Amino acid sequence: MAVVVGAALLALPVATESGESAGLVTALFTATSAVCVTGLVVVDTESHWSAFGEVVVLGLIQAGGLGIMTLASLLGLLVARRMGLRLQLTAQAETKTIGLGEVRAVVRRVLAISAVVELLTAVVLTTRFATGYDMPWGRAVYEGVFHAISAFNNAGFALYATSLTPFATDPWVNVPVMLALITGGLGFPVLFEIGRRLRGRTRRWSLHARITLTTYAALVVVGVVGITVIEWSNPDTLGPLGVGGKLLVGAFQGVTPRTAGFNTVDIGQLNSGSLLLTDFLMFIGGGSAGTAGGIKVTTFALLAFVIYTEVRGEPSVHVAGRRIAADVQRQAVTIALLAVGAVAAATLTLLLMTDFTLDAVLFEAVSAFATVGLSTGITASIPPAGQLLLVGLMFLGRVGPITLAAALALRERARRYELPEERPIVG
Amino acid sequence: MAVVVGAALLALPVATESGESAGLVTALFTATSAVCVTGLVVVDTESHWSAFGEVVVLGLIQAGGLGIMTLASLLGLLVARRMGLRLQLTAQAETKTIGLGEVRAVVRRVLAISAVVELLTAVVLTTRFATGYDMPWGRAVYEGVFHAISAFNNAGFALYATSLTPFATDPWVNVPVMLALITGGLGFPVLFEIGRRLRGRTRRWSLHARITLTTYAALVVVGVVGITVIEWSNPDTLGPLGVGGKLLVGAFQGVTPRTAGFNTVDIGQLNSGSLLLTDFLMFIGGGSAGTAGGIKVTTFALLAFVIYTEVRGEPSVHVAGRRIAADVQRQAVTIALLAVGAVAAATLTLLLMTDFTLDAVLFEAVSAFATVGLSTGITASIPPAGQLLLVGLMFLGRVGPITLAAALALRERARRYELPEERPIVG
Ligand SMILES: [K+]
Ligand SMILES: [K+]
Repeated sequence: MAVVVGAALLALPVATESGESAGLVTALFTATSAVCVTGLVVVDTESHWSAFGEVVVLGLIQAGGLGIMTLASLLGLLVARRMGLRLQLTAQAETKTIGLGEVRAVVRRVLAISAVVELLTAVVLTTRFATGYDMPWGRAVYEGVFHAISAFNNAGFALYATSLTPFATDPWVNVPVMLALITGGLGFPVLFEIGRRLRGRTRRWSLHARITLTTYAALVVVGVVGITVIEWSNPDTLGPLGVGGKLLVGAFQGVTPRTAGFNTVDIGQLNSGSLLLTDFLMFIGGGSAGTAGGIKVTTFALLAFVIYTEVRGEPSVHVAGRRIAADVQRQAVTIALLAVGAVAAATLTLLLMTDFTLDAVLFEAVSAFATVGLSTGITASIPPAGQLLLVGLMFLGRVGPITLAAALALRERARRYELPEERPIVG
Repeated sequence: MAVVVGAALLALPVATESGESAGLVTALFTATSAVCVTGLVVVDTESHWSAFGEVVVLGLIQAGGLGIMTLASLLGLLVARRMGLRLQLTAQAETKTIGLGEVRAVVRRVLAISAVVELLTAVVLTTRFATGYDMPWGRAVYEGVFHAISAFNNAGFALYATSLTPFATDPWVNVPVMLALITGGLGFPVLFEIGRRLRGRTRRWSLHARITLTTYAALVVVGVVGITVIEWSNPDTLGPLGVGGKLLVGAFQGVTPRTAGFNTVDIGQLNSGSLLLTDFLMFIGGGSAGTAGGIKVTTFALLAFVIYTEVRGEPSVHVAGRRIAADVQRQAVTIALLAVGAVAAATLTLLLMTDFTLDAVLFEAVSAFATVGLSTGITASIPPAGQLLLVGLMFLGRVGPITLAAALALRERARRYELPEERPIVG
């Protein structure tokens, strides 16, 4: 619904710089990309949209980010309740359902965290824009707030046609943006737990927080090291930079596939190897119930644990002294395989529709599905039917894994009878 | 071991047409490709190898094909015995182990089926080569036998630099080759069951045979229809042909990814969409315990059933009135995901080593892993380190899924204690 209202507003002539309506496909694409906090664009945000249009985009990003965090947190809480398990997101007594008071408490906490992180980020960015780039304070505040909101919500919309490339080697812009997008991307349940721990209210991490934090950190290391090494001497990306610049840009490019969508080098100039590595990282995405997309780091980690357990020949999956429920394993497999199917089908369709290479098309499809928003630059040249396909993919990627996970968890039911067992040969 | 002996023989100067040694990497690559019945080549089989070299290649193909069918059948039998289940490959009494007599019986039956199918195919091909192409009978017999053995073993080695393209529109060559490669690719357990059924010895299909036959048929339909439609008007492939020719070439190209490796059009000229579709089909491959490669059609079908069951919210996977054992489901997931990992890692490495596009490199990696042998034409231009990587990938793809499946099935053991359960949020 936010998408429809947003698309209608963006289709108004007043939303564009030129005063002419942007057209329905462009308005719909941009509104979907904003609400799903994806960040793919078919027109340059700064030059195409008027101030009114930009504020609409910003509002859609904020609404989309808050909405998805709240929805996913509440669904997670509902699943935990039904299973008779504790998931500490509110202080209420543990019951089988969620009361209105708890919904309010979750919304209040999501709002509070968003506001605090966005405000801090905006202050640092504004100061830097005003003092380091001779921007008038009014403009600096606007750009600081815009990029702070876009970063925390992992939206990836920037006010520059080349994303954050103008600030590629400026740590005062890079670091706050990275901190904001990581905070947003860890997910509300983990942030809530970190908050309680900092205030001394809990003694141990939940398994969810442990898996999220370690997997997230491991993927960041893989991304940063991988991209930096592969691109080190690419003359079109890291090549011309000094060692400090190479490290900073490499670090940013290793963090952003998780699934922020800002970039500080031209993605179209990356080595094919970097693109493929980024495809994997984007597909995995960030933490559950946050602003990040993808199949989520816990889903990926559980698959790894399932394989490890199976190869070791053990009958149940144990992680850090806890057993993983069998239905959660099946849910992880289902989500991952359906996601592979969706991306594969979209890639094949886009390949048939256009003349772009597999490199570029696969990157575009993964980026849309995982709500990343990075692109090799082909988005605007895809025909309208292909853009509508991406709209569907962004939407599916945004709400699909979350609602599927909840629906699967809530629908598990017992069979009334058992059939005789049989073992087809696999492999 | 066959690989080492084969490589040594092929490295002899007498093995080449020119009388100079082919070099170790080329000899090793060709021997591995022959024993693993892959069919990727770095040199043209006909013009580079002497008659002696060609016979060595043919011997390696036959040894590799028989070896893998026998090994996989015996492993399947052993697993079934340990689990206390019936798998009818021999007439012996059901015990927990496999006696020498049973090994002999399996080997005898594998030999018999191979000999019959290869002989029939060779007779048809020889007759056609002699009568339709004015070949001397000696040459026709040689080519008929070579291509018959190569087809039944799904090896994909041909005596023409362009594979079977010279016979693209000749049904008298296409049809026997397709029948031979499908027979070889269904797998020995299914062939054995079909044989018993034809002689009226069984009343019902085993679940393994049902799943293999239906999935195999469905994938053939997807491949044939997909490739034919996508390439219909491609001027470099099906475009110039008449309707009959289009259908025949499209059909052959839809069957060959299962994992024969012959081609009747230039793979390098296929549309990117056809290449990606072929990637999926090759990755899935053929039937278990046959001469085909890939993760196998049963593995793929089980994953689909697991997802279907999970989405329907049912606790156990039921197929055609039978329940699928939970450990078989986990084995299918493990094999598929490890295969994805192996192909992804090899693709990334090859991308970094060379300047080829993702299209071509992914195709090459999948083709090597699934022992298909189709190529866009880049194999010979890959540097030696990359060729050795492909050697490893062919070997892993040939023996990996089979031995992994058996090892996993035989190593399942009970845990002595259970830890408390916890549910990380996925999706
Ligand atoms: K994004
Ligand atoms: K082959």
